[in-house]
Amino acid sequence: MSEQRPTLAVIAAEAGVSQATVSKVVNGRSDVAPGTRERVEGILSAHNYLPPGRHTRARRSGLVDLVISGLDSAWAVEILRGVEAECADHGVGTVVSIVRSDEAVPPSWTDLPVLHHSEGVILVTSDVTEQQIRKVRAAGVELVVIDPVHLPGQNVPSVGATNWAGGLAATEHLLSLGHRRIGVIGGRKELLCSQARIDGYRAALERAGIEVDRDLIRFGDFQHEGGFRNAVDLLALPDRPTAIFAGSDVQAMGAYEAARQAGLRIPQDLSIVGFDDLPMCDWLSPPLTTVRQPLEEMGRVAARMLFQMLDGRPPVSSRVELATELRVRHSTAAPSLGPSTFG
Amino acid sequence: MSEQRPTLAVIAAEAGVSQATVSKVVNGRSDVAPGTRERVEGILSAHNYLPPGRHTRARRSGLVDLVISGLDSAWAVEILRGVEAECADHGVGTVVSIVRSDEAVPPSWTDLPVLHHSEGVILVTSDVTEQQIRKVRAAGVELVVIDPVHLPGQNVPSVGATNWAGGLAATEHLLSLGHRRIGVIGGRKELLCSQARIDGYRAALERAGIEVDRDLIRFGDFQHEGGFRNAVDLLALPDRPTAIFAGSDVQAMGAYEAARQAGLRIPQDLSIVGFDDLPMCDWLSPPLTTVRQPLEEMGRVAARMLFQMLDGRPPVSSRVELATELRVRHSTAAPSLGPSTFG
Repeated sequence: MSEQRPTLAVIAAEAGVSQATVSKVVNGRSDVAPGTRERVEGILSAHNYLPPGRHTRARRSGLVDLVISGLDSAWAVEILRGVEAECADHGVGTVVSIVRSDEAVPPSWTDLPVLHHSEGVILVTSDVTEQQIRKVRAAGVELVVIDPVHLPGQNVPSVGATNWAGGLAATEHLLSLGHRRIGVIGGRKELLCSQARIDGYRAALERAGIEVDRDLIRFGDFQHEGGFRNAVDLLALPDRPTAIFAGSDVQAMGAYEAARQAGLRIPQDLSIVGFDDLPMCDWLSPPLTTVRQPLEEMGRVAARMLFQMLDGRPPVSSRVELATELRVRHSTAAPSLGPSTFG
Repeated sequence: MSEQRPTLAVIAAEAGVSQATVSKVVNGRSDVAPGTRERVEGILSAHNYLPPGRHTRARRSGLVDLVISGLDSAWAVEILRGVEAECADHGVGTVVSIVRSDEAVPPSWTDLPVLHHSEGVILVTSDVTEQQIRKVRAAGVELVVIDPVHLPGQNVPSVGATNWAGGLAATEHLLSLGHRRIGVIGGRKELLCSQARIDGYRAALERAGIEVDRDLIRFGDFQHEGGFRNAVDLLALPDRPTAIFAGSDVQAMGAYEAARQAGLRIPQDLSIVGFDDLPMCDWLSPPLTTVRQPLEEMGRVAARMLFQMLDGRPPVSSRVELATELRVRHSTAAPSLGPSTFG
């Protein structure tokens, strides 16, 4: 490996910058113009270049840090399961840290890999700043992000699911059953994955020639309360939707409760589609039609990308999206013809 | 600490054995008679004795191994949350390993602390052999067990909940509502926590002067399918129960589905009580009455006991049981007076 690696001087020449600048980029210093940094990093990456410190560390610790923003949902567990399985296959331990705030990850997570002498960090649903990325890289640690709030720059690879295609599939399923008034509940507006799902919903309606009614689009978080409150509001509309596409399975459970309180039967009076395909979807009454995210596989892929980077191979792509898939169970049916019965 | 610690010679004199024997016990060797080992360990423990290697290791790694048999339920996540929180408060990282088999933990988990240079191991719902304990201790690693299949010997502390009292409370709640035919579904028979819950159920019936009907006692695992199958069987009895006490919340969800398929409304036609109080209990329709286990706190206490041991202080008790608490929601009511309606 080290024999194939060009010297910093070669990198500097190729990038048309001084060797000091290359060194600054390698060491994560902030006093480099963004454009220059990106050019140098591209060349470093193309040459499979990793600072020597990273390799030494990688060989030593046998640990990876998994940093999760909140572990409030069965969702994060599925990701954890995949990361842990892939790491275990590589004889690497998974150090799990939970960031317990709805806020963006505090800067301190960047200290964890140094504290744990870990080889790399996998961050789940977080917002990452350039400064944080530089700090982690300066410590000789690699980074992969799963379902980030925003796509990180600086060649940090990220893993997600085909959220747009999932939103499209969920909505097309409801359209094919005959629904025309379809409510949708998203997660927090700024979340990339949530926005993609809602855009998929819009696209399906537009392709079917149905005008998008902004009253039918709601945002909450991905939790039960967000699903419940928004479903209550949607069902209180004068011309209520006959179907609801919820942004997560947990939100869908909130919509189940809203339906129960409104005296509506699922699926006879109201169809509901979720998103995630958590194990509990099979256990709901009725079992939930949902869009499957391959969460465990997303965790595995993120770990695999991290190991590749630690081996000095750049990731094949800076963004990997795994396919979503509609799972039809018993919470969706054709809308009833007569006027809906309340109470 | 080291100044207070007696020499091996003092320990040997007090135990009435040779210094070589004390050394063997300290180093986890197997060629010591069980009775001798226990006596020597008791004295070592009374003197707050820890081999020097353990202390050195503890200061060095800042990691604890959390080994979980299966992460198939939201249950294990709550434990994980507690262990991680307590470790984080101590600046210690939590290395999570999932053993993916219904079998007892394979011997290889004992290699993890050496691999990860961790200070100690917290094992969740596992069966532990004396040989495994000796091996781990020989590596200078401390061990705490949460909800073990059997109580481990050899002064390994364990943490659990007051399962017997929980079973008693759940059953007395149903009795107080007027139920007399109460079905119960346990986990695997050999699981200590499951047996304690069923015994609490029996005790409540006996205290109420009701004969225990063995037909009403079923065993499955703690999963959905076990709850569903057993509830289907219970509801098919000629004189079906008017209430079911399920051994876990996930089993209770299986009983919900069995009720739905039998055309029984909850709680009008069938009362259901769960066990655990997972976050999803609030989200079920209707919300589930259940026995709360303080799972997160159990994780915290296990970690706290481990840190005490690493500081050279023996645990206050070899077995800590945290209180369970009945949480009444909307899945329980008085039994209906008329004959039950099926279909």
